[in-house]
Amino acid sequence: MNIAVLGTGNVGKALAGALAAAGHVVTMGSRTADNEAALAWTTDNGVLLATFADAASASDLVINATGGGVSLAVLNSVGEQALAGKVLIDVANPLDFSNGFPPTLSVCNDDSLGEQIQREFPSARVVKALNTLNCELMVNPSGLPGDHVLFIAGNDADAKSKTIALLWEFGWPAERVLDLGDISAARATEMYLPLWLRLMQTVGNANFNINVVTGNTP
Amino acid sequence: MNIAVLGTGNVGKALAGALAAAGHVVTMGSRTADNEAALAWTTDNGVLLATFADAASASDLVINATGGGVSLAVLNSVGEQALAGKVLIDVANPLDFSNGFPPTLSVCNDDSLGEQIQREFPSARVVKALNTLNCELMVNPSGLPGDHVLFIAGNDADAKSKTIALLWEFGWPAERVLDLGDISAARATEMYLPLWLRLMQTVGNANFNINVVTGNTP
Repeated sequence: MNIAVLGTGNVGKALAGALAAAGHVVTMGSRTADNEAALAWTTDNGVLLATFADAASASDLVINATGGGVSLAVLNSVGEQALAGKVLIDVANPLDFSNGFPPTLSVCNDDSLGEQIQREFPSARVVKALNTLNCELMVNPSGLPGDHVLFIAGNDADAKSKTIALLWEFGWPAERVLDLGDISAARATEMYLPLWLRLMQTVGNANFNINVVTGNTP
Repeated sequence: MNIAVLGTGNVGKALAGALAAAGHVVTMGSRTADNEAALAWTTDNGVLLATFADAASASDLVINATGGGVSLAVLNSVGEQALAGKVLIDVANPLDFSNGFPPTLSVCNDDSLGEQIQREFPSARVVKALNTLNCELMVNPSGLPGDHVLFIAGNDADAKSKTIALLWEFGWPAERVLDLGDISAARATEMYLPLWLRLMQTVGNANFNINVVTGNTP
């Protein structure tokens, strides 16, 4: 599949690298297509580099791996037409570090970044996913022993199926990807971030995730 | 120990019943001391019934098991003097159901109910705990197979130690009680509630909890 990964930070690199290794044609989207550091990394990792808009236009599926504070601006520079009908996996968290650590959320409670993106680009098929764990674990769930889970949320069942299929390529069994419902459930996973950030301090590193233990588990 | 459990709902009953069964002298706090339904329940379960204020005054440790929307009003009816120096375990979540289900939080992001209570009653030693799971599991962690965790937050180390000791009486091993830091970490556990509520829908019941899986686990 032709996949755009918007964002050249650690999350973008982890996702783009893993998708290219899985055989996809990956275009990393950046502010400019001639950023030297990004060009060096993409060349080394078999990934193409383009502007945000060109990357999205060239791809069938788009992943938003930009910082939550700039995601809407980046997607606006891409424009609705390049996103229309496409699965748009939103990995970003609307973290606001302006008052230091731990950050607050710039949107929460009765709205979420995932919903903002879906409202702004109604013809895109937004799936909130992968925003509840460290980027190394996103693409390598076996980095932790035992079961642990991911959450997805979105309005389009087919888009969620395609997301689950892509996550399977990273090593996530479908039964460990919990569907929380429509895109308004993005509130739930984004509002988990304060707990994730506290846990990072308690655990001492970012190499952790949560499992959901039910009474049905044998 | 003499323990007050403020609130006669399901959470109050679960906690009061388990504490009485463990041998504590438990006084359940209610709006009135002659509520017939509450009197019948307390009599059946070896628990005393009193007004919120009298229950707190008679006890060494106070548990706030009232609804998050009324917690501050109830504690104000108790007054600072009856809480001074005491461990005050806050189990409540500031859920606002005024716009239906799922509820929003009446306070979050840069504040929390736990912090509001600590600010309002500075001489109480507030510990946020037990607000991230169903009341049956609070007092019976073996109701789920395998490991799952609780979170505590508070400014007073001794109060947290006493809370951990009390949780141990419910069956929670100390290593499954994760200390997230000072009372501002109440934001993290209260903001987990939206995810808990979505998970309840996905799981199909409230009999679940989360485990934190780390790279250090064998």
